[in-house]
Amino acid sequence: MTYELYYWPGIPGRGEFVRLALEDAGADYIDVGKRSSDKGGGAGAVSEFIHGSDLGQPHFAPPVLKAGGLVISHVANILQFLGPRLGLVPEDESARVWANGLQLTLTDFVAEIHDTHHPIGSSLYYEDQQDEAKRRARVFVQERLPKFLYYFERVLAVNAGNEAYLVGTAHSYVDLSLFQVVTGLRYAFPRAMERLEPEIPAVTALVDRVSQRPTLSAYLTSDRRLDFNQGGIFRHYPELDG
Amino acid sequence: MTYELYYWPGIPGRGEFVRLALEDAGADYIDVGKRSSDKGGGAGAVSEFIHGSDLGQPHFAPPVLKAGGLVISHVANILQFLGPRLGLVPEDESARVWANGLQLTLTDFVAEIHDTHHPIGSSLYYEDQQDEAKRRARVFVQERLPKFLYYFERVLAVNAGNEAYLVGTAHSYVDLSLFQVVTGLRYAFPRAMERLEPEIPAVTALVDRVSQRPTLSAYLTSDRRLDFNQGGIFRHYPELDG
Repeated sequence: MTYELYYWPGIPGRGEFVRLALEDAGADYIDVGKRSSDKGGGAGAVSEFIHGSDLGQPHFAPPVLKAGGLVISHVANILQFLGPRLGLVPEDESARVWANGLQLTLTDFVAEIHDTHHPIGSSLYYEDQQDEAKRRARVFVQERLPKFLYYFERVLAVNAGNEAYLVGTAHSYVDLSLFQVVTGLRYAFPRAMERLEPEIPAVTALVDRVSQRPTLSAYLTSDRRLDFNQGGIFRHYPELDG
Repeated sequence: MTYELYYWPGIPGRGEFVRLALEDAGADYIDVGKRSSDKGGGAGAVSEFIHGSDLGQPHFAPPVLKAGGLVISHVANILQFLGPRLGLVPEDESARVWANGLQLTLTDFVAEIHDTHHPIGSSLYYEDQQDEAKRRARVFVQERLPKFLYYFERVLAVNAGNEAYLVGTAHSYVDLSLFQVVTGLRYAFPRAMERLEPEIPAVTALVDRVSQRPTLSAYLTSDRRLDFNQGGIFRHYPELDG
């Protein structure tokens, strides 16, 4: 099976959570947004595919994954589908339901991270909502950032004897997503994270472990891995960093 | 199976999306938060159950559903689990993946609706972020509200011959959730909705149809159905209503 990922080129964004799973598993996939337009790729092709009504199923936003005859939108939905197929989630229903719940908590966390720099609206420039962003980021750094990270630390701590993994006794797609969130937070809020990380040793150890996975580490140092930048979810504005 | 729903008493909130599915199907369930504390209910019991580490699975926030040995958090995760068991989603994988994707778009929509009155932080009073709320609500009413509602209108329009349903040819939990969102929006933004609704006739017709379902309509007019109020996701502040 060759998967097709539809996501905007140029930013890691939400598409990167899907890429990490595909890359970690060494899956065969086409990153349509990154292809040249004369090969049927680019942002135009992404937009056309997502909003098209060919399948009777227009999607609201990317990422969207095409897997044979199935077309799937939303990161948590895509990862839930890929998990069993890529060996990135345990077999039993209880673990899968737990994994999906954790992924949806990460989804909420990512939305809050995004809104630190866009608290009024995504259609406005950062510069036109900078005062509100400073205020929202202050609450985020003081309250929400520790609340979410302490939560994941606790999930790891109570996973008796398996604190290297969020779900059960093995690596899963949720570990990959937490890796991406923490890595993004280090880029966006380096001062706040430097203060917080000593208090979340299990989270930090998980991020280290994930970064050293053989297939994934080759991807992370390749040209395919997009750097964090000022167009995505995780943006570094020093004035928002505590 | 007697399900146990753990959610804060006093507000419809995110718990109501789960209640609508249970009530529509006539399922047997205990609404733990609404029980008196001497019967093991109330907000304290909800908080204790959710954050407890008895099962090695602390949850981030309610709603949480206990279904036999399974404990499930997040609305979309709970509805995905209940859907097949309550006859509220078609059998085939393609339809279930599509239903979950639509539900996750509603999840995002609900978060944006909430943030119109709390754009800076949930821990602050509305009155302490009213200026920012006015600005965010203006962008929401002008851009995001129509974008989301036109999207669901389009989903219905392209569901050839079945524009009464979001998923396939039958009533599903996603229809119930869209009903709840539109009903909440009518409470929170009556002026904006009065202007918009003529442009989304299929959405409006779906909401009417859902409100007339026999078992559900009895619930909607019962004491169990909580009114929208100023403590939940959908709040009516006239100054935010376009």
